[in-house]
Amino acid sequence: MSKRTATLPLVLPPREAGSPAARWLYATLRAQILAGRLPAGARLPATRDLARQQGLSRGTVVAAFEQLRAEGYVAGTIGSGTYVNRVLPDELLHVRRAGRVAPAASPAPARHVARLARRLRALPGYERRPTRAFRANVPALDLFPISLWAQIASRRLRRATAQQLLGCDALGYRPLREAVAHYLITSRGAQCVPEQVAIVSGVQEALDLVARLTIDPGDVVCVEHPGYVSATSVFTAYGARVRAVAVDEEGMRVPDGRARGARLAYVTPGHQHPLGMAMSLRRRFALIDWARRAGALILEDDYDSEFRYAARPLPALQGLDTHGVAALTGSFSKVLFPSLRLGYLVVPPDLVDRVAAAKSLANLHTPLLDQAVLCDFITEGHFGRHVRRMREVYAARLGVLLDGTRRYLTGLLDVSGIEAGLQTVGWLAAARDAATVARAAAARRVEVIPLGRPALGTVPREALLLGFAAVDEEEIMRGVRELARVLGRPAPLP
Amino acid sequence: MSKRTATLPLVLPPREAGSPAARWLYATLRAQILAGRLPAGARLPATRDLARQQGLSRGTVVAAFEQLRAEGYVAGTIGSGTYVNRVLPDELLHVRRAGRVAPAASPAPARHVARLARRLRALPGYERRPTRAFRANVPALDLFPISLWAQIASRRLRRATAQQLLGCDALGYRPLREAVAHYLITSRGAQCVPEQVAIVSGVQEALDLVARLTIDPGDVVCVEHPGYVSATSVFTAYGARVRAVAVDEEGMRVPDGRARGARLAYVTPGHQHPLGMAMSLRRRFALIDWARRAGALILEDDYDSEFRYAARPLPALQGLDTHGVAALTGSFSKVLFPSLRLGYLVVPPDLVDRVAAAKSLANLHTPLLDQAVLCDFITEGHFGRHVRRMREVYAARLGVLLDGTRRYLTGLLDVSGIEAGLQTVGWLAAARDAATVARAAAARRVEVIPLGRPALGTVPREALLLGFAAVDEEEIMRGVRELARVLGRPAPLP
Repeated sequence: MSKRTATLPLVLPPREAGSPAARWLYATLRAQILAGRLPAGARLPATRDLARQQGLSRGTVVAAFEQLRAEGYVAGTIGSGTYVNRVLPDELLHVRRAGRVAPAASPAPARHVARLARRLRALPGYERRPTRAFRANVPALDLFPISLWAQIASRRLRRATAQQLLGCDALGYRPLREAVAHYLITSRGAQCVPEQVAIVSGVQEALDLVARLTIDPGDVVCVEHPGYVSATSVFTAYGARVRAVAVDEEGMRVPDGRARGARLAYVTPGHQHPLGMAMSLRRRFALIDWARRAGALILEDDYDSEFRYAARPLPALQGLDTHGVAALTGSFSKVLFPSLRLGYLVVPPDLVDRVAAAKSLANLHTPLLDQAVLCDFITEGHFGRHVRRMREVYAARLGVLLDGTRRYLTGLLDVSGIEAGLQTVGWLAAARDAATVARAAAARRVEVIPLGRPALGTVPREALLLGFAAVDEEEIMRGVRELARVLGRPAPLP
Repeated sequence: MSKRTATLPLVLPPREAGSPAARWLYATLRAQILAGRLPAGARLPATRDLARQQGLSRGTVVAAFEQLRAEGYVAGTIGSGTYVNRVLPDELLHVRRAGRVAPAASPAPARHVARLARRLRALPGYERRPTRAFRANVPALDLFPISLWAQIASRRLRRATAQQLLGCDALGYRPLREAVAHYLITSRGAQCVPEQVAIVSGVQEALDLVARLTIDPGDVVCVEHPGYVSATSVFTAYGARVRAVAVDEEGMRVPDGRARGARLAYVTPGHQHPLGMAMSLRRRFALIDWARRAGALILEDDYDSEFRYAARPLPALQGLDTHGVAALTGSFSKVLFPSLRLGYLVVPPDLVDRVAAAKSLANLHTPLLDQAVLCDFITEGHFGRHVRRMREVYAARLGVLLDGTRRYLTGLLDVSGIEAGLQTVGWLAAARDAATVARAAAARRVEVIPLGRPALGTVPREALLLGFAAVDEEEIMRGVRELARVLGRPAPLP
């Protein structure tokens, strides 16, 4: 902390009638130092300012400061500033630390917590370890052109108008909504006008907004099995009865009678999470037809389809919907960087006003200048260039992973070729347990996420999720060799 | 839109078996142009790329392009790029516009909407008109040092680590949480450790998170009357039964029997919104005692107490709480700029994990680099300097407002001197109707918000909310003179 921040007016508890002013001020400041409210290094206000603020004479304040200085609580001279001592006597430090650890004086009363809050489970936190093979869901952050981004941001901020400092509509900065609509129409085959596009704080917020609009406690929501756990956590928090619908080679099956009365189906047709296949065209139409008959909304999460390695991408499911039953969400996290928290949500026209109301009550709107920087990044062509560049890099990394596992792991770990995304799946030989393999790999600094036993096709097999985008080709080969060791067939040294 | 964004792969619907490839491609591209999916000026992919993407021969693509060019849909030459024509024949334009306006082909089914969503009412949008006397709730945005902010942002972004591009804890960027805790302790008299501080997207998100944690449908929530409408909207959306508790000269009264079973009380003790008085110390202690006995949480909104014109600020109510019943929220919108969407929420220790879970499910975390820039702005002393500078500017503007109304409006509009904030209240003479005055003032380009008839003291009078921070002294005097005209006592010309 800088010393300067403490020169804002100091707030002191009121003085009891009858206590001498200098004594009161000394005791109060001392108590604040001991309690850690005035931490080591904090600058006390100038005596003149403090006197005025507290309605005391300057002599009173000087007297109190002198006593604090004499006892070792503060240092410095009048004129150059007075600071809380960085090194306090041992006995003081002891009291002070205790004060910092236990902020509330007496225990809180039995706290009432809302039912929604009791269903909340925090999502897993960020990994703080170095990025390794085969970290999933993370792009190659070291290849993001951050200097270019900084330059665009600096230009945008310097030119910001008073209106841009004030705010924007709940659904976002209009030029960005137009740019995103254009991008989704031309590159993802979506069907929308800019009015249907909401700029949100990532897919996570899109899930939250859609859950608010569609779920009452007890309502049925369909999710893919296996599927994206963080989505299920949101639906569960809103009190949904979650129906896990099996995934086969064509993607999620059409929900059956167990999903009667379903309000929502959450799907990842572009690149099923976690298994990686694209939903077949036939299945997409069947799902739209089911939603129309059921009166349910489909939420399509197009989370990493920018990185497509096959020649002919399928259009987004939302683009095939002529009944207004499909919403589309996606994130800029995987193309740009996740901590930016920017994504989009496209909804059918009749839900636009409700999304705007939900978004404005939740947080008014997504930070405007971040949106404006992204808008420039897209419209100036940097977005498209970065996607193309990363697609080449990731395709090469995927190639290394496929080659490596074919050479060293055939029969032990069969890795799926995929059409899009940042990760793929490795299928273990029948007798293997994914969780055990993952633990053994972790001991060799290789990260794989065990998927258990997805019943895909006729033989349920254990599987591992393997990310290939975040690390370079050398690290991918290290990961392959370590996995070969874990699975009992050591590869020759490179 | 730039042309470049359209050079990402084009997503086309699948080709029907048996139709000749060139004919299919021509018809498909033509349909996309007519439907507005390929807008005027959009660049088509290079023939070579499109051929590869669609699995066609290059000759097929060239043939389709030639036909589109011959019919006037596209222009440009092979080699230099092919663009959708900006000027299309009239009959095409007609079709195309229709396609843009009506995105969904058939009407949506009767849509089921969750109960929570049916209670949502959008908050008022941003004012797009020029800032005038007496715009409320807005700081002097033209005096914000945006170049300095841009410089700090640029430096932060250029130095961002891969970890910072990835993310942070749900409660925020740790160094900012420390800086905010320090600021709240030293300048606002709050009592907290950094672990209790959550960085949120403004007070609006703090309201939403606290409502999630405390309110089940049917629960009682106490708010001030008159009070902050956007807060009440959030509580109502979560199904609360809202009890309006009268405000007197000491701030909100202690809730009575009608508030039995209350889960939450939302208060603005620093500068009551909208009336402007500070809650008395006696009332603060009484409210804490009520909350302890009721098992309720107090949410203190310290929305603009940075700008304090009286000498001795009272400490935050949260700082007086020794029972763990008070939470504290505030925004950086009023000091910096509102479109940044950054604020804080300090909660009792036992609620920290629940706030983290709610925040992570809602949007993972607040954008990290915005937080890091604010952290630098605070710790390098810019925040404190800007607060001090604005406090002087606003104090002078308030002085002009008080002088002006005393000179020209005594007996017609009595303006309260206030201790803090960006706005104050003008009390109308007994016979006047605030809404009528506000309409007449609007016709003279003066904005005042009618407060109706707050029963403060023994004589209920109509009142107007008057902002004085957003506009300069000349504009304030213009507003005073226009109000004098509206109220029937024209002031002499300046």
